[in-house]
Amino acid sequence: MNIIIDAMGSDGGSKPVIEGSVRAVDELGISVTLVGPENELNNELKFIGYSGDKISVVNADYVIDGNEEPTQAIKKKDSSMRIALSLLKDGYGDAVISAGNTGALIAGATLILKRIDGVRRASLAPVMPAKDSFFLLIDAGANSECTPAFLKQFAIMGSIYMESIMGVKNPRVKLVNIGLEENKGPKLIMDTNKILKEIPIRYEGYIEAREVPLGGADVVVCDGFTGNVILKCMEGMGIAVTCMIKNIFLKNAITKLSALFVKSGFKKFKNSMDYTEYGGAPVLGVTKPVIKAHGSSNGNAIFHAILQAKRLTENKLVDTIAENIKQYGGESQKGNADE
Amino acid sequence: MNIIIDAMGSDGGSKPVIEGSVRAVDELGISVTLVGPENELNNELKFIGYSGDKISVVNADYVIDGNEEPTQAIKKKDSSMRIALSLLKDGYGDAVISAGNTGALIAGATLILKRIDGVRRASLAPVMPAKDSFFLLIDAGANSECTPAFLKQFAIMGSIYMESIMGVKNPRVKLVNIGLEENKGPKLIMDTNKILKEIPIRYEGYIEAREVPLGGADVVVCDGFTGNVILKCMEGMGIAVTCMIKNIFLKNAITKLSALFVKSGFKKFKNSMDYTEYGGAPVLGVTKPVIKAHGSSNGNAIFHAILQAKRLTENKLVDTIAENIKQYGGESQKGNADE
Repeated sequence: MNIIIDAMGSDGGSKPVIEGSVRAVDELGISVTLVGPENELNNELKFIGYSGDKISVVNADYVIDGNEEPTQAIKKKDSSMRIALSLLKDGYGDAVISAGNTGALIAGATLILKRIDGVRRASLAPVMPAKDSFFLLIDAGANSECTPAFLKQFAIMGSIYMESIMGVKNPRVKLVNIGLEENKGPKLIMDTNKILKEIPIRYEGYIEAREVPLGGADVVVCDGFTGNVILKCMEGMGIAVTCMIKNIFLKNAITKLSALFVKSGFKKFKNSMDYTEYGGAPVLGVTKPVIKAHGSSNGNAIFHAILQAKRLTENKLVDTIAENIKQYGGESQKGNADE
Repeated sequence: MNIIIDAMGSDGGSKPVIEGSVRAVDELGISVTLVGPENELNNELKFIGYSGDKISVVNADYVIDGNEEPTQAIKKKDSSMRIALSLLKDGYGDAVISAGNTGALIAGATLILKRIDGVRRASLAPVMPAKDSFFLLIDAGANSECTPAFLKQFAIMGSIYMESIMGVKNPRVKLVNIGLEENKGPKLIMDTNKILKEIPIRYEGYIEAREVPLGGADVVVCDGFTGNVILKCMEGMGIAVTCMIKNIFLKNAITKLSALFVKSGFKKFKNSMDYTEYGGAPVLGVTKPVIKAHGSSNGNAIFHAILQAKRLTENKLVDTIAENIKQYGGESQKGNADE
């Protein structure tokens, strides 16, 4: 198995990518193709003393910036992201990982790899930490405006991912709304609610945002605008709280001393709120495995993203999604209502 | 000044309302009218030994339940909430406070008190805690589907509230979006962005949900669906985190000991995340001051809601909103686009 990595997308440059890759080829029995400025990557590999033959380098002169307009950016043929996706399309590997521009990666995956037959929209679906558990958020920002047909497919793809990749048996799927009453909320949500009841997933109705970080569902379905708000709101609250706790312990000598006794507990707590621990966010709905690693990924996060890419490939996730979408992911009579 | 209180809406029954009212008439130099089952309320007042003449009771036999469908529920003429609003309309007081069914309160305020001339939608606008600061969230759930014209008025009303009631000079108003680039996001947001630039408020563009709990804006403008997601997501994260921290300290004898040294710090932290500390959420855009107190309000929260009602009345918030909406809150040429 060969995993192709856009080596230049992360905030920390190629360093974390090389660290994670060296560890992965060592521990996972796979090979890696790094895409980026050839000289720089080869020098880095030499610098950390890697001399094996499991890591190859493909040259790319251009790196898409995080601020570039996605659909324009991905058109640049010499970018590391585009070359990585093209290599995957042409069969030089089994999956792509990139820590770069999220919008460009989704646009590129759709443009170059194409969507699975019948899939209406590719979706970004990170696994997020909750109290004592974790959940899949789909869509987390790829599609800010959705129809019930899109949301139905997100529910199907999310459910498959949680079961086959994350090992959650018969995952509870819920739809984000601002109340639990059947007839509450926008038309989009009420229409989707009806459709989700008809398909063979474990759909358990609405979820309010309050229950999301508390672990109220295994698959949280929403449009990409709402999903992005949930993802970033949780991230911001995590930062705010961590910062406030730090100040409590820094108050005086006694509080600093007591910090020592709970240090390991708080380290675990901080890690549990860090969603890079779960690898990256898969781009679901395209014909090959593509993973968006967090921009601030360190070597450990890249390693986990590679591990995840390996699992997606071994589990033939794309094939399972394709079968299920074909079977019951198309337009039901009610589903047609939104077209 | 007389504040009318729907005495039966809170989860804790009439007890917190009576506690908060007794303290308020004592400390704030106002009077209070409690609306609810006469006998029960009079007995409670007698029980805690109140014998003054600053608290009067108006009988209401029915209490709207939190789960009732709002527009149906508010039609019940003998409900404590409806009688409270009718008393306010007929001049028997200066403001209404209720901890009951939020939807019914907004529907009732609109139906009975009517919207201010030119105001398109009444809005629920709680003040929320952020790291080292606080912000106004408008709309927090009253209007799940919005137009740019609605959002424009939310921005105006929110800006006025933060300045005149919360004392924030020239408050920074931002619009929730899933990126900071001018041309990113749904059409609703991009259209609203253009309109907000044309009015005399301190509009500073988009805000991502990540920055909201970090204090990135004083007035956070969004549709009620998004606002409700932010409010509840922050609430859920607060609960999740508090629970996780508790477990860290409960681990063993040493961690329990160290908990003693940071107890006061954590108590402050917990309070700072508790938005009932800021009183209740005003229903902005109707012709009289109406405040939604949190369902789980204790006596202290009710006291703060009464203090807030007093401030709204003294500051003539309704008049200021009316003037500003008249002056620049109507349909601009661009604003008409969404009609």
